[in-house]
Amino acid sequence: MKPLFIFGLGEIGKIVLRNLSEKEGVKLIGVIDIDPQKVGKSVYEITGIEKFKDVYVEKDAERVLKKRKDGVVIHLTSSYVKDVIDQYFLILDMGHNIITTTEEMTDPYLKHPRLAKKIDEKAKKKKRAIVPTGVNPGFAMDLLPIVFSSVFEEIKEIRVERINNASKRRFPLQRKIGSGLTPSEFKEKWEKREIGHVGLAESGSIIARTLKLKIKNFEETCDPKIAKSYIKTDFFEVNPGYVCGILHKVKIETEEDININLFLEMSLDAENPRDTIYIEGKPSLKLEIPGGLPGDESTASIAVNWIDKIFEMPPGLWTIDRLYLNHYFKKI
Amino acid sequence: MKPLFIFGLGEIGKIVLRNLSEKEGVKLIGVIDIDPQKVGKSVYEITGIEKFKDVYVEKDAERVLKKRKDGVVIHLTSSYVKDVIDQYFLILDMGHNIITTTEEMTDPYLKHPRLAKKIDEKAKKKKRAIVPTGVNPGFAMDLLPIVFSSVFEEIKEIRVERINNASKRRFPLQRKIGSGLTPSEFKEKWEKREIGHVGLAESGSIIARTLKLKIKNFEETCDPKIAKSYIKTDFFEVNPGYVCGILHKVKIETEEDININLFLEMSLDAENPRDTIYIEGKPSLKLEIPGGLPGDESTASIAVNWIDKIFEMPPGLWTIDRLYLNHYFKKI
Repeated sequence: MKPLFIFGLGEIGKIVLRNLSEKEGVKLIGVIDIDPQKVGKSVYEITGIEKFKDVYVEKDAERVLKKRKDGVVIHLTSSYVKDVIDQYFLILDMGHNIITTTEEMTDPYLKHPRLAKKIDEKAKKKKRAIVPTGVNPGFAMDLLPIVFSSVFEEIKEIRVERINNASKRRFPLQRKIGSGLTPSEFKEKWEKREIGHVGLAESGSIIARTLKLKIKNFEETCDPKIAKSYIKTDFFEVNPGYVCGILHKVKIETEEDININLFLEMSLDAENPRDTIYIEGKPSLKLEIPGGLPGDESTASIAVNWIDKIFEMPPGLWTIDRLYLNHYFKKI
Repeated sequence: MKPLFIFGLGEIGKIVLRNLSEKEGVKLIGVIDIDPQKVGKSVYEITGIEKFKDVYVEKDAERVLKKRKDGVVIHLTSSYVKDVIDQYFLILDMGHNIITTTEEMTDPYLKHPRLAKKIDEKAKKKKRAIVPTGVNPGFAMDLLPIVFSSVFEEIKEIRVERINNASKRRFPLQRKIGSGLTPSEFKEKWEKREIGHVGLAESGSIIARTLKLKIKNFEETCDPKIAKSYIKTDFFEVNPGYVCGILHKVKIETEEDININLFLEMSLDAENPRDTIYIEGKPSLKLEIPGGLPGDESTASIAVNWIDKIFEMPPGLWTIDRLYLNHYFKKI
């Protein structure tokens, strides 16, 4: 039985636990969270999963992580590298592997090259693996187009479109996409990066990094989607003319003349939700998942599913460009 | 510059060379083939690619492979493990990595577990990597569904359908799918395995192996597709009532109650060609590539694109179940 810990019990953490309750060969040892509403309660009380009735939520991470060695931590706390690096170091010092959904970790070398190097070195020193993952960033707009790229002889453009209907999603997500704001409030909040999707820039840069393309021009924009009719969700009411979502874009030009264009729409009542990858080149092909991958559920699944492979992997930080999988290249 | 060799210059080898002519950082050192029509000719004479005018086709593999060390061989000779194992051993003895399209190598443990182990051990001893690849088997009906499986919480069925229009393809392929035979001739030839697709069984078993599922029941069938109207290609004329292709199926039941169903139609004038993966479970989703991946071209590309990563990989035989990528699991 592989010892397992959850670090951060939010909404995704709850889905992770539901998911884990169906897996065999792993044993939940501890759950860490700082929320006073959760600390001291059993996982059963919070999630209703009987299998975990003997595991309690604790706030002292070190105390929890000391209970076993050579396990794996599913880490679900923050989107930003600076917020999580101390947590990683503690986990590695306690002798565990890490599966993390921290969005910036999809390509930590983009904004925090020095910290990324420190994390990689620390993991190697402690002989443990750390794998960043998630559905977006981590799969739909980076890993999947990278895997798809391996069957192309020439590539001129990789274009990824993810259209996600946010109407049934969590309150923080509906807020994050600017629901109910005026267009000018939206603009202000985007400039302070209080809204928008964390990780789209990293998806673009990890594609370029994996395919060994030199970035010549990098542009990130986030425009509001404006409601054309009245929209009502469990958390928001949006009148026509107000914001009902984001139209988030990353455009990358490379020295190899291969363009990477990512387009993410997350909006209330989005029409025709889907994940689509277009690769233009030799040949030109489209790959599509109609309906699209559900955000929270897919992130929980992809994190849990890493548990099997991570124990086989050598020490270090396993960003997508390092994984042993095939991808298009132009130049070694 | 990475030293590179081609072992087997058939139709796919020619596309591989065209593909290589656009890559930077690799240098074609030698091309091996036994066809008297090709031996002694320059690659330029055979393919029209000027970049390779100083490389000649030679039949003495050892002599060619000795020209450099620490290179990579793109190996394109036969579908069967027994035919290629001596070639692999020679390449490894000469100090090169191997990218091979031998279909049975997609899961050599299915039919040749003893030989597979020998190849893995030999590669480790010689400190070189060997990677089996191709579009089918190797990608469309195994790797891609495996990668897709990583975002699922529960899986009841993985169903893959590849519909391939063979009308414009090579003569050997049109023959391999039984074009022009009577249904009873088809049956006879299938029983002797003279027609049908080599590798479909391996695609099914490598999915099960990667997801760590125990196979309870394994069924492989190949029925003829019967022409409803007159069909003419560059190589065959097929009258109504005669065979125009294969309907090849693999059905796997596992102890974990996860079913794997593969369906491959390769036929003349096939309608609605495509690659489709259905995963039924939590959630249930479809992934589709309309038009489908072109067989020969995609195999050439995926083989060439491995050149970048193979030099980073530790020694041994890297079947899909060993690659560092994520996939669904039920039990460790």
